[in-house]
Amino acid sequence: MTKIAVASAGSWGTAFSLVLADGGSDVTLWARREEVAERITTRHENTDYLPGIQLPPSVTATTDAEEAFAGADIVVWSMPSQTLRGSLAEWRDLVPRDAVSVSLMKGVELGTVERMSQVIAESLDVPSRQVAVISGPNLAKEIARREPAASVVACEDEETARRLQRLCHTPAFRPYTSTDVVGCEIGGAYKNVVALGVGMAVGLGFGDNTTASVITRGLAETARLAVALGANPLTLMGLAGLGDLVATCSSPLSRNRTFGERLGSGMTTDEIYASTRQVAEGAKSCSSLRDLAERTGVDVPIAEHVDEVVAGKITARDMMAAFVARETKAESD
Amino acid sequence: MTKIAVASAGSWGTAFSLVLADGGSDVTLWARREEVAERITTRHENTDYLPGIQLPPSVTATTDAEEAFAGADIVVWSMPSQTLRGSLAEWRDLVPRDAVSVSLMKGVELGTVERMSQVIAESLDVPSRQVAVISGPNLAKEIARREPAASVVACEDEETARRLQRLCHTPAFRPYTSTDVVGCEIGGAYKNVVALGVGMAVGLGFGDNTTASVITRGLAETARLAVALGANPLTLMGLAGLGDLVATCSSPLSRNRTFGERLGSGMTTDEIYASTRQVAEGAKSCSSLRDLAERTGVDVPIAEHVDEVVAGKITARDMMAAFVARETKAESD
Repeated sequence: MTKIAVASAGSWGTAFSLVLADGGSDVTLWARREEVAERITTRHENTDYLPGIQLPPSVTATTDAEEAFAGADIVVWSMPSQTLRGSLAEWRDLVPRDAVSVSLMKGVELGTVERMSQVIAESLDVPSRQVAVISGPNLAKEIARREPAASVVACEDEETARRLQRLCHTPAFRPYTSTDVVGCEIGGAYKNVVALGVGMAVGLGFGDNTTASVITRGLAETARLAVALGANPLTLMGLAGLGDLVATCSSPLSRNRTFGERLGSGMTTDEIYASTRQVAEGAKSCSSLRDLAERTGVDVPIAEHVDEVVAGKITARDMMAAFVARETKAESD
Repeated sequence: MTKIAVASAGSWGTAFSLVLADGGSDVTLWARREEVAERITTRHENTDYLPGIQLPPSVTATTDAEEAFAGADIVVWSMPSQTLRGSLAEWRDLVPRDAVSVSLMKGVELGTVERMSQVIAESLDVPSRQVAVISGPNLAKEIARREPAASVVACEDEETARRLQRLCHTPAFRPYTSTDVVGCEIGGAYKNVVALGVGMAVGLGFGDNTTASVITRGLAETARLAVALGANPLTLMGLAGLGDLVATCSSPLSRNRTFGERLGSGMTTDEIYASTRQVAEGAKSCSSLRDLAERTGVDVPIAEHVDEVVAGKITARDMMAAFVARETKAESD
């Protein structure tokens, strides 16, 4: 039986552990807090992040990283993007050298502007073909309820992608393979930024025409940047681009959309952080993606404006006014 | 001042008349029923389709087609797709020979599998460069409330597209030009079919992951057919493709999504028709688009399945099971 370690036990890490267990693997979750680990192992429930969901018995948890990673064939990473590098530095010697790493994370590191798979390969000193990403329209709570969903497993090494596909294929979860790691990761990181923009429009009281326009322009912007970085444009039209973007922007469950709604209703970033424990990845990624785009020479007006709103330099209303006021022209310009 | 005739006074025809009047034109709406025409002219309100919306004084209405079309520089068509040809045959001699026609319609004619702009050019015996289409994420009720929205004005003749763009550009309505009439029309017709599929998933109780997957696969299918017919794939990623699709699928105001929800909850097509006056274009277009795809040699599983559900040959549950059960493979296959 394949032994899989998953770090850490947030909502998506836990929901994906359930998928892997349904697929027939033995899963050990690493949790930061003792009571979370204990409840998962003894009561098979993550009451903090997925209350009411019964986890399969083959999912256990520990706060001991050495125990979690020992003998793992595959290590799945689901951590906050901006603290990943620090955690990996600490755990580097505990992860088996030949374990395949899988990133569930959607962000770009501030400063280095590296994608999560790059941070993993660099930190663990493994070749990039040993790191895969899984990305798609996968709201954790729906996955945990075993509602039907599709996703993309991307790895430079096609055989590794197919191996992971077999491991997470269940009656409810349908993975497609791809070799376009860059496209999947940029799509995943960018959708959080677009979701912030959509949330702002919603918070300001705009309707479905406006949010659909933000989504459309946002995906075009995502594709422009991803293609400049070497991605296949079709990836952005697929599940890890359009699919993930639409699911996130439609869902009242989305943290990034909710964060945007609060900005739209006039709260500041500090006020929002003070009122919620959950992380909105997009509030960091807007800055790192903007930086990445600048270094790549790509124009990204939505990421720029979202970044300015998050930083408190302009209001959400200013952003939407700028979005609406652009001069009329040919659509393809 | 440009004189524009709009037929007929449904919700989108009326809302777009408001945009044109805001843009500075004189608009005459043709309405089928005397009381609708009278209320628009005297009270500036279409109480049947846009209750509570005050129309500008430069919008008037008549049931007399000769009066409506006389001296029109531009004629805007917003009729049910399947009865357009009959109406045009009747009015053909009333429409000024050099008037530009604009289609707001989203469908493909049963039998002939012609797009609406083709039906217009043929019926009025004008060259295709004299016919434009306007399509985008434009829910009529939001447009009527002057919420910000963007759209595409497409015409083979770029100068005509730009002329129409100037006429409908207002502080709230932002038109982009395009020469890809085929892409806009296939995008517009197909989104109603995909919205039926999304509605079915919602009616069956599925969540945002599933609906996002239906939207993603639906747009890929739309693009495949449109490109085979000569469209630019970027049009389908734009406002008249993705944008319109997302607005329609997100909105509880959408007739097609609502129709799909009722099918999903177990009602038959006949039962739905018996319970509502409004037309769901997608319930016809699924059949004509399927026919068009067959003649073009393109595989369209979503249109096929939606058509079978509408015809009562399979249930919505069967359709979703087929959608979920497809074999795992590479996403680009």
